[in-house]
This record gives sequence, C-alpha cells and structure tokens, in this order.
Amino acid sequence: MTLRSWLAGADESTFGVHNLPYGVFTTADRPGERRIGVAIGDRVLDAGAAASAVGVPSALLEAPTLGPLMAAGRPTWRSVRHALTSWLTQSGYAKAVAAHLVPRSEVSLHLPFDVADYVDFYASQHHAANLGRLFRPGQEPLTPNWKHLPIGYHGRAGTIVVSGTPIVRPAGQRKPADAARPVFGASQRLDIEAEVGFVVGTPSTPGSPVGLKTFSEHVFGVCLVNDWSARDLQSWEYVPLGPFSGKSFATSVSPWIVPLDALEHARTAPPPRDVEPLPYLDDRGEDAWGLDISLEIRLNGHSVSRPPFAAMYWTAAQQLAHLTVNGAHVRTGDLFASGTVSGPGPDSRGSLIELTWNGQHPVGLPDGSERTFLQDGDEVLVTATAPGACGSRIGFGEVIGRVSPAR
Amino acid sequence: MTLRSWLAGADESTFGVHNLPYGVFTTADRPGERRIGVAIGDRVLDAGAAASAVGVPSALLEAPTLGPLMAAGRPTWRSVRHALTSWLTQSGYAKAVAAHLVPRSEVSLHLPFDVADYVDFYASQHHAANLGRLFRPGQEPLTPNWKHLPIGYHGRAGTIVVSGTPIVRPAGQRKPADAARPVFGASQRLDIEAEVGFVVGTPSTPGSPVGLKTFSEHVFGVCLVNDWSARDLQSWEYVPLGPFSGKSFATSVSPWIVPLDALEHARTAPPPRDVEPLPYLDDRGEDAWGLDISLEIRLNGHSVSRPPFAAMYWTAAQQLAHLTVNGAHVRTGDLFASGTVSGPGPDSRGSLIELTWNGQHPVGLPDGSERTFLQDGDEVLVTATAPGACGSRIGFGEVIGRVSPAR
Repeated sequence: MTLRSWLAGADESTFGVHNLPYGVFTTADRPGERRIGVAIGDRVLDAGAAASAVGVPSALLEAPTLGPLMAAGRPTWRSVRHALTSWLTQSGYAKAVAAHLVPRSEVSLHLPFDVADYVDFYASQHHAANLGRLFRPGQEPLTPNWKHLPIGYHGRAGTIVVSGTPIVRPAGQRKPADAARPVFGASQRLDIEAEVGFVVGTPSTPGSPVGLKTFSEHVFGVCLVNDWSARDLQSWEYVPLGPFSGKSFATSVSPWIVPLDALEHARTAPPPRDVEPLPYLDDRGEDAWGLDISLEIRLNGHSVSRPPFAAMYWTAAQQLAHLTVNGAHVRTGDLFASGTVSGPGPDSRGSLIELTWNGQHPVGLPDGSERTFLQDGDEVLVTATAPGACGSRIGFGEVIGRVSPAR
Repeated sequence: MTLRSWLAGADESTFGVHNLPYGVFTTADRPGERRIGVAIGDRVLDAGAAASAVGVPSALLEAPTLGPLMAAGRPTWRSVRHALTSWLTQSGYAKAVAAHLVPRSEVSLHLPFDVADYVDFYASQHHAANLGRLFRPGQEPLTPNWKHLPIGYHGRAGTIVVSGTPIVRPAGQRKPADAARPVFGASQRLDIEAEVGFVVGTPSTPGSPVGLKTFSEHVFGVCLVNDWSARDLQSWEYVPLGPFSGKSFATSVSPWIVPLDALEHARTAPPPRDVEPLPYLDDRGEDAWGLDISLEIRLNGHSVSRPPFAAMYWTAAQQLAHLTVNGAHVRTGDLFASGTVSGPGPDSRGSLIELTWNGQHPVGLPDGSERTFLQDGDEVLVTATAPGACGSRIGFGEVIGRVSPAR
C-alpha cells in the first residue's frame, strides 16, 4: 500500500511524505524563537512541538538549529524520519500533529545550520570546458588534472545566506582588456552559478579518509546553492590562487535540507568516464552516487535553463572522498557544493556567462529586454526536483535572490 | 618610570609586562577545565582566577576560549589589558595574583579560539616571485595582478591545529613530470610556510568594508602560523582554482595571541611600492601597518632561516581592506595569515621549496644529514620577536610541529 499523508494535498505536492525536508523557521507571533520545521504539502510541521504532542519530546527537534540532529548520526536520522513519517501518515496521530502545522506562506525561513567549512567543487565537465574556453581561449578547455580529481576550493562560510537575502552588487578591482591598470568599482558582470550542496552531519576523524562506501554515513542532506559570481573581479584575481573576492561576497542556499534518504530513488549511474579514476575515486558498482536532480533557473520569473544534475562527471561521494583523502576531516555543518550544474546543451547551462557565451548572445526576457549579466533589481530563482519513492517527486524548494545596487 | 613586573625575571623575558599575550590552558590536575591564561615570564597567569582574587570577577576572563573577550571590542581589550598590567606590576596586587601563576612548563596549551573563516594571503613579493620562478618557469615570476591587490584564498578552518599537534604526512595525487598519469601516495615534498596570522575580534557589518583606518578596531591580536604544504599535491591540483588538498590537511598556529596593542612599537613603514595602489589600499601616511617582526625557522633545532616580516609588500590592514571591499564581513574568530614570510636573501626564505630552490640545494643539518623537503620525524619550529615598549622585546612564543609517517 502506498504511504499517504492524512494532510490533504500533501502527496500531490513535491513536499509529500517521501520527502520531509528539514528547515528552521519563525512565525510572526514568535519572531525570536527559531524552531525546526519539516515541510509537508503547503505547511510546515513544528517538529519539536509535534514530538511533544505525541508524547515523545525530542531535544534534537526542539533545538534552534539542525546542528544537534545533524551531529546525531545516521541511525538517529533514520529513526527521526521514521517517526515523522508515522505522525504524518497514520490517522491516529492526525489530531495531535495537525495542531502544529503552520501554513508555509506564514513562516520566515532561516539558515538552518551553522556552516563550518564551505568547499565549492567544479564537477560539471560541460561547465569546466565552457569556462576554460571563455577564460583561457586558445588553450585546451579542460586542465590536465580535471578528469583525474574533482577540483575544488574553499569558499567563505561566513557569507553564506539563506534564500531571499538581498544580494548587494559587490565592488572590487577589474581590469578591462584594453586598460593598462585595473579600475575599482561595482561589478559589471554579476553572474549566478546554480549548484547542488551537500551538508555534512556526522563528523569524520582527523586523519581518516571518508571512502566512497561511507558517504551516506556522513552526509545528512542536500540543498540548492546559488554561488553568485562577479566575473570581472574573478577573472582579474584568480591566477594563481583561485577565486576570492569575486565569490566571497555572498552564496545563497535553499532553506530546506532534503534528507539523503529521500533521494534513494534518484540515484543513477554517473556519465561514463573516459579516464580511469585512481582507486579512492573509483565508484564503479554500488558506490556510484549520481543523482537525477532536475534543476531550473528562472530570471525575473522566466525560465532560462534546465540543468541536469545527472550529467555531472564527479559525484558528491567522490568529492567527499577527495576532500578527506589527505587526512582532512569534516565537521558537522560542513557544506560542499557541486560547482555549476551545466548540461551539454545551450539551454541547460547553469550560469549566465555560459548561457550568453560571455555576453555575446544575450538572453531575451518576455518584457522584451535582454540580459548578458545581472542588472540591479533582477531576481534569480533556482528550483529542482528529483524522483522519489512510489512515483513521487521530491522537491528542493527554491533558492532565490534579488540584486540590490552597489553601496 | 619604566613599568616593571613584580615577578622576578619577567621583564628580562620576551613575555614581559609590555606583551601579555593571551592563550587557553589546562593543568594536569584539572585536565577538562580550559582557562584563559596570560603569559608572563616563565609563568602563566590564570586570568579569570586572578580577576576574582583582586575583587573584579570577569565573565570574559572566566570563559573557556578567548571568543567572548575577542568579541567584546577594542575598548574592552584596552581596559582588560590595563587591568592585567596593574595586577602584574603593582606590588599591592602581588600576593593575591601570584597565587594564580602556574609554571608555563606545567600547562597544556590549546587552540585559544574557534576559528571562523581562514584566509591565507600571499603578501611577500620575494616569496611570490620565488614560487613563480619555480612553478611557472619561463614566465614572469609575478602575475600581472600581484602588485595591484593582495592575493589570497580561503583555507580550511577545521584543520587548524595548535602548536605541538603532530602533522601526519598527507596522501594524495601527484604527477611526476615524466609520467603520463598521476600516482597516489604519501606526499614526497612536504614543506612548511612560516607566516604571521591576524585574529579578528570585533565582527564587521555585512556590506560595510573595513577600511585601512579601522584595522585596529577589528583585529584582536597576532600569532604565528605554519601553513604546511604538500608541494607535489599542490602543483598538480592548483590550476585553475588554487591550492586545496596540498594545504588543507593541517595548519598550525602558535598558542599565544599577542594583542595588537603590544605591537604599537613594532609598526614600521612597509617597503616602497612601485605600483600606485587603488585608493582603498593606499596606506601612505598613518594607515601603514608594516610590522617589524623577526621570524626564525628551526629544523630539528637548527636555525635555517630568519625571515623579516617588515619586508612584506602588503600589510595586514591592506589584506583586511581587500577581503571586505566586496561587502564580505568578518566574524569573531576569523584568521587571516600573511602568506609565507620570505625576505630578499637566501637565508631569509620562509619555505623549504625556496630555501633549497626546489630541492636543488639541500639544507645541511649539524648531524651531517641534508634536507630538501621534510622527512618523517622532522620537527619544525617557528618563533618570532618584535620591538616592544620601553626597549622590551615582544615574544610570540613558537609554533612547532613534528612530522608523523603517512597512515
């Protein structure tokens, strides 16, 4: 028998009982009180209050962030998920639990955990090749290392913001091609990068790599990421130590963390690799963590791209294995993102620099205007779904941000 | 009248009353109880206990980390420093305070604050040019951006460890020059980078750059950093997004944080710049934060280099201004390091890759052995002093680490 929620409409939404993503919310009547919420249909379940109402009060669910639950480890994640599923599907719980549902339209959502270290990878071959062609014309698009290791770099954890936070256009140095010296001012080439983020729950031990087989012991869940990028700042600064101020001003994340367990049915084979990976990255067989997540990017409400996460060359499990193979450990709250999700076609690219081919082919909007890079006031929304259990769709919600003028 | 401590020998040491660096310690009889300590002579003052003993109990000094004190801001830093100076110099306090001095040899020192974001700069022209010659032979040693902005990148905060923590040789991918493919294994080219680190106390506001004039409002103090580097991993991975696994396995910091106020007498003019900086980096005049800190590197007890921090092209104030000019804010516990401190001469370089010129000219040790890069069991110590008030020397203590074999 198919599992169904007693909440009307829940199972027709992308927040059905096979999803149950976690977030942190407040309501207008209790604005200072952050609570853990679980999205179900068009509602948010106050998880801590519901646990108490059904007689199993939970300190993990009454916390003001997801941190304690994330740190509790996979057996606990599974038992909490099992309990939530029971409360939302069994009619005997309905009365007690329904009292703790809040309309999603009435809550404010917050950054649901304290970000420890933030790493951004570069795992789409299509994106890396496109950027290589644009940033290093005349050279091989992919650097020689690209198919041997998942390239990544550390980003700024302190400027990760939740969806909805305004994005102030950054200022910095850029060097016009025909100028002898750099100039200072607001970025003229503000861009997006649509990505998928992985949130670490269980920490690992310093010195002990997290192999492909233990990926799911450590990763609590998955979110969407928009890694805002000032291309003019980035291209001037990034040689030789990588991106810095062109990225560090803001990174937006979606407020809902989809449990990794909800994505079991989204697992898919990664694309074939034409270079044999070293053993610690060799995921042939059951260690393959390709995920069939379909992203969509909307610019001012208009769909401009549908990037397929299934096309990513490197998986999150390979990224975590690489990140830790040198002995570095992960901590609760570490976030690592996939890098821009770009598919093979021109309508599946995850950044404007690719979609407009460095501004040469502007994107048209329904109001007749065109965009190369972002203008002040523009709003970018990234959303995604994936196959869930029993034919359901797993929704990731959205990560949204509007560009404010430079100060 | 010169300020002197009533503690015998204190003012002849580099931990005299003009220094008063902060750390966090435990003692063998109370191993679980982390306490804030202030180094004085060969002792550590239990700062919280001393405050209570003189009748002014302080929650900031009774905390288990420096975080609350760091967050309290510069007026508080100054008043706490003033109080500590009084307690350690005025004989009326001697009896009450002396009861809370512990021999430094009897304490264990810990990472004194929770590291928020870690940024590593690249501010020595000599180092950047040396590395450019070694990593990119045949090209201009300095990239075109180098004299226009203080290049930096984010590092891994979670693997910052306190001095004395063993450094396990990392494993990873490296590609021998004559090989068609990379190989996996323990790093063969493990190196050091002697640096100076700056610790943020007062956070800044998102969107509001920290200008050169407000540097000292935000920076709580200064420590030593050894940014361990696996050169073979680094050279294979670092194009195009910068260093990652070649650095992220461990970064060691000294346990004592020297207050910025203790370094007022160490301020010195930075070296002349031959490229005019953009206004936000223009530190001509009283905004110049050159610091006359003399470093020394010892390998297995043998002095191998004396890098002069005064030779750094970019100052910490310029680094903080650049880090925040795009709107990124800093948080209490942010650490930003200078990058390798290398002077102009071959005996003042801050890394083995420079000292041995990529292994071509090994360093000789007194036991007759030679080193190109580090061997298992090698111990590296970085120490430093700077001019203090009244002719004193300000000591930074040391950052030490011994290499353990790869697992």
